[in-house]
Amino acid sequence: MARYVFGADVGGTTVKIGLLTETGEKVEFWEIPTVTEDHGSRIIPDIAASIRAKMKERKIEDTEVVGAGVGVPGAVNSDGMCYQAVNLGWEKISVVNELHSALKLPVKAGNDANVAALGEAWKGGGQGYNNLLLVTLGTGVGGGIIIDGKILSGSKGSGGEIGHIHLVDDEPEKCGCGKHGCFEMYASATGAVRLARRVLAMYDEPSVLREKEYECRDIFDAAKNGDNMARMAAEQYGYYLGKGIAAVATVTNPEIIVLGGGVSKAGDMLFDLLMPSFKKYAFSGCAEAKFALAKLGNDAGVYGAAKLLIG
Amino acid sequence: MARYVFGADVGGTTVKIGLLTETGEKVEFWEIPTVTEDHGSRIIPDIAASIRAKMKERKIEDTEVVGAGVGVPGAVNSDGMCYQAVNLGWEKISVVNELHSALKLPVKAGNDANVAALGEAWKGGGQGYNNLLLVTLGTGVGGGIIIDGKILSGSKGSGGEIGHIHLVDDEPEKCGCGKHGCFEMYASATGAVRLARRVLAMYDEPSVLREKEYECRDIFDAAKNGDNMARMAAEQYGYYLGKGIAAVATVTNPEIIVLGGGVSKAGDMLFDLLMPSFKKYAFSGCAEAKFALAKLGNDAGVYGAAKLLIG
Repeated sequence: MARYVFGADVGGTTVKIGLLTETGEKVEFWEIPTVTEDHGSRIIPDIAASIRAKMKERKIEDTEVVGAGVGVPGAVNSDGMCYQAVNLGWEKISVVNELHSALKLPVKAGNDANVAALGEAWKGGGQGYNNLLLVTLGTGVGGGIIIDGKILSGSKGSGGEIGHIHLVDDEPEKCGCGKHGCFEMYASATGAVRLARRVLAMYDEPSVLREKEYECRDIFDAAKNGDNMARMAAEQYGYYLGKGIAAVATVTNPEIIVLGGGVSKAGDMLFDLLMPSFKKYAFSGCAEAKFALAKLGNDAGVYGAAKLLIG
Repeated sequence: MARYVFGADVGGTTVKIGLLTETGEKVEFWEIPTVTEDHGSRIIPDIAASIRAKMKERKIEDTEVVGAGVGVPGAVNSDGMCYQAVNLGWEKISVVNELHSALKLPVKAGNDANVAALGEAWKGGGQGYNNLLLVTLGTGVGGGIIIDGKILSGSKGSGGEIGHIHLVDDEPEKCGCGKHGCFEMYASATGAVRLARRVLAMYDEPSVLREKEYECRDIFDAAKNGDNMARMAAEQYGYYLGKGIAAVATVTNPEIIVLGGGVSKAGDMLFDLLMPSFKKYAFSGCAEAKFALAKLGNDAGVYGAAKLLIG
């Protein structure tokens, strides 16, 4: 008798849901809309209904299902208590209790970035590693820390919020969190653009970046093509990325560090860019960590949410 | 039938051993010498023999003993594998396997600073908290991180090595680890002396610190007595202490932060000194952590080692 597990990754516009075998083979992934009206009160019932409909469609009995895991874009502790999820309209809510009431199956929940890290450790770029750090390089910098195979959630679910480690003292601009000089002000996609803007303002040298509105990937493409201004921006990006990761690695001593998110499409060049400052700033006992690229893309959260149920 | 547990805290000159009830009541604590000759090969057999002798003396049967835990001054992962313990002469060694062979009782092991954190979470300044950061302010800065009641050991046992987080970019002096600008260069007892030395060199103002060889506690005593130079050094000390703790708290989101080690004898004034920079640099979701002073002193490691056996 096949045994199944469901994973749901709740985003601001859609919920990705996956049906997997308990060994992590993908059976079917689909999406439903995230209804944020009325303080997001329909989100959990909608997930439960969608899972129940899929079980009915595929004639899957309750006894064949290990349970359902959920990743949420907010602070969630290891008991599945969500303290706030602004994009969903949620205040404090026990995701585990609410979904369990609606679904009548075993339920677990976690923060989406943390759950994605668990997914990458299960079936992605960090497959087979029990101590992993996932660094998600997107509009911001997110993180997920896996210790002995479990998510580091922290007391109020803010564990792994590595984007807001303080890196730079004299930063004049303000981070989205209200502070100055956070890691994600430099190591995110918008951070790369910020660094390029500053390089271009400081020097007169010509650059393809002066010819158009550019975004993060244009900087890395131009750097690969030998554009000197872009190369300087990319090197600064790597400097801050390595420095921030070094701080996290010194605290948590991961075996492998996995880079995900849109910026990670720049590929292996990121490792060359970050390694000098990573080696310079990481404690020697932690500096031998492996590096890898994430493999699961937007599916990482679904895999990880399912993995919450699998010991 | 009373149930007992043993804890052993291995130091460079003595091993502290404790017999406790499984609820953490102290029955008897004693010490044996640490014999470091011959690559420390006698240390584990000596611990086993001392525990066996105590059991015989007190007529304690094997069935009454939950087991024995050991704290080691070196990197130890969650399986009890020690990668190196320089002060003991140890290279890679499975503490758990070796002690189990000698003692024939259940055995666990951990890094001494991490184990001390577990002790403070069980019976000390962080009693009752499942997510705790212990910051040990001594000659260096050590740390122990407890997540959901368990030690964060990391893949090679270097988890919680917070003393070597990079804090300052332009530090000319070298840290014991070979790098520049580590947290412990400022927030340790020797760090406080370094900061005072720099303050005294920068200003001409009189200070009691100019009148003698001073150590860390003299700085805090003088600051309390209104010595302006000492106050400036103490404020700088607090600035770095708060900034370093903020970085760790942003990664691990502890419920409570416990300060231990010799410098913590300065008491509550440390909280006043560190709070401005802690609040400035910690991510908002982590900035509400409580602070407390450690309570178990040099016994923390014995309590924590014993607690390794108690779920």
